[in-house]
Amino acid sequence: MMIDQRLLPEREEWLRLETAEAVAEAIRDMAVRGAPAIGAAAAYGMVLGVGGSAGAGWTEVDSQIQAMEAAARSLKAARPTAVNLAWAVDRQLRIARTYLSPVGKPDASVRPQGPGHAASGLAAVLLAEAERIADEDVAACRAMGQLGAALLPDPCTVIHHCNTGALATVDYGTALGVVRAAHEAGKRVHVLVDETRPRLQGSRLTTWELARLGIPCSLIVDGAAAHFMAQGGVDAVLVGADRIAANGDTANKIGTYGLAIAARHHHIPFYVVAPTSTVDALAPDGAAIPIETRAAEELTVIEGRWIAPLGAAALNPAFDITPAELITAIVTERGVIRPPFGTGLSAILDLTS
Amino acid sequence: MMIDQRLLPEREEWLRLETAEAVAEAIRDMAVRGAPAIGAAAAYGMVLGVGGSAGAGWTEVDSQIQAMEAAARSLKAARPTAVNLAWAVDRQLRIARTYLSPVGKPDASVRPQGPGHAASGLAAVLLAEAERIADEDVAACRAMGQLGAALLPDPCTVIHHCNTGALATVDYGTALGVVRAAHEAGKRVHVLVDETRPRLQGSRLTTWELARLGIPCSLIVDGAAAHFMAQGGVDAVLVGADRIAANGDTANKIGTYGLAIAARHHHIPFYVVAPTSTVDALAPDGAAIPIETRAAEELTVIEGRWIAPLGAAALNPAFDITPAELITAIVTERGVIRPPFGTGLSAILDLTS
Repeated sequence: MMIDQRLLPEREEWLRLETAEAVAEAIRDMAVRGAPAIGAAAAYGMVLGVGGSAGAGWTEVDSQIQAMEAAARSLKAARPTAVNLAWAVDRQLRIARTYLSPVGKPDASVRPQGPGHAASGLAAVLLAEAERIADEDVAACRAMGQLGAALLPDPCTVIHHCNTGALATVDYGTALGVVRAAHEAGKRVHVLVDETRPRLQGSRLTTWELARLGIPCSLIVDGAAAHFMAQGGVDAVLVGADRIAANGDTANKIGTYGLAIAARHHHIPFYVVAPTSTVDALAPDGAAIPIETRAAEELTVIEGRWIAPLGAAALNPAFDITPAELITAIVTERGVIRPPFGTGLSAILDLTS
Repeated sequence: MMIDQRLLPEREEWLRLETAEAVAEAIRDMAVRGAPAIGAAAAYGMVLGVGGSAGAGWTEVDSQIQAMEAAARSLKAARPTAVNLAWAVDRQLRIARTYLSPVGKPDASVRPQGPGHAASGLAAVLLAEAERIADEDVAACRAMGQLGAALLPDPCTVIHHCNTGALATVDYGTALGVVRAAHEAGKRVHVLVDETRPRLQGSRLTTWELARLGIPCSLIVDGAAAHFMAQGGVDAVLVGADRIAANGDTANKIGTYGLAIAARHHHIPFYVVAPTSTVDALAPDGAAIPIETRAAEELTVIEGRWIAPLGAAALNPAFDITPAELITAIVTERGVIRPPFGTGLSAILDLTS
């Protein structure tokens, strides 16, 4: 069960998804969105990918591994930029392979004698792991909230882009979790909410979450952020991330990069708030991060009505890359990393292995 | 008769306006928009402001002058930022006073003996002046087009904000006139059209005009401009202006300032294209330019549907100020002005007096 974010704030409807393919479709169509949230959703999707034979013979184990690999491919193909998706799917796939073939060699040629584990137990193992992933995300958000809140003055006005709240994570939020933690700590925070075209996650989701939390906010068009910085009184920019390269270059919702340039121009701190599951150690820098291009209709049609001439051409990259040199600090659940990010990121990643 | 720009591109409807107050309302509600276009519309609005007594006695002349002053106040109050509006209205008011009271002293205490001009002839005089203002605007746009087109390489990709085409002027356009002139001169121009939230003038109007002219364009969200600059291949940013202060600081549609910061960051030339009627010699710098704030509903409601929680607070400045130091050149009908703009602007303004 997950809330259908496409219908917010007008309607609160819950989706029941029963196959891995249905989860992949919900991710692709953005019924669920936000890097940590799609990671967790995909972890549950892998549970739904268990199917077919339930026995412990090698044939049954092989067919089960193939089913898991097919589910993994489908889920990972749903959206290309957020690395949390592949991270969660690969984590489940490793669990499945290890469980089914305990000696760790699914390759038939090097298999020991005797059967693997019965595939019938696999769903329960993956469900436990999905719950672990979800719990870890909540704990990470809480930790980032505490660390990030300490960076904000009191009172303060922050600019926030896209949606990074409870809806974008399992609960609590990344950048919005920082706002929430500061508010809970008694700091007076006012949020300038970028509406975040084209899908208006700021208007539709972030204002909805902030209103529920009783945190004062004002919606602005994305193009107005620099104007408010020039007026004075903006203390920080807070954003989430869809993928952070090893050098700190950060992929996030389109519009983030322009915001980072404007923040630098006005000497305003620019903070990226993301769990370590968002860091892609295999991507040396931003150039290695694939940027998803979405349909032109996200710009040309709103609420079913054309707002541009029929068939107008549009270019719709869903993300952009903010180079590390424009980022003041990256707030992770393991600590606040300052430049040079390469050193800091590899240090915290080493804690995992 | 003027086209109702609020309905484009879905419907092409023409408005017939019969009073100065109706013209003021059309300007306020943005049925007509674009600094030069509202200047010309207001000049015609002053023709409609002629009313009441038609005789040449001092009482009739006094009442006519009062009617003209009332029309002028109403028109000038419609929108505060674009100086072309006040410029055109004041030009008509001067014409009216001079015509009605030829010795130039409407003040009764210093009046000579004998009546002024019959108010019955006033409408014709003002109509001729309105037509002169309109003709001058067309000529200015053509001249700016020629001067600006020479600045563009061939082929080129330019980013354009808001709408500055035939719809925003009397005909041909300012920044879009430059694109048009370059296209007519055989240069291969591709326009990245900022959709320009909140009113989407880029989506609704600029793509519509460019399609009619056969000029290739791609719509982008305002937040994507910096991303395309970073990708390389953006040769220039072209914008119009609503008011240019004596030092070159420029008020233009919200989002312009952020675009200028991003252009500077990428070493891309940033051109302001505007007729001399947009220059306000009495405003020493941008701080002296009033910025219009418009209704929150421009952000929260699209096509009659709420896209944010009901009653969400929004801040909606319609314009921002781009400081002179971020502007590469100002293209006017009298020449291309380079920094320092103070000297260049006062030199071309002296030609008028």
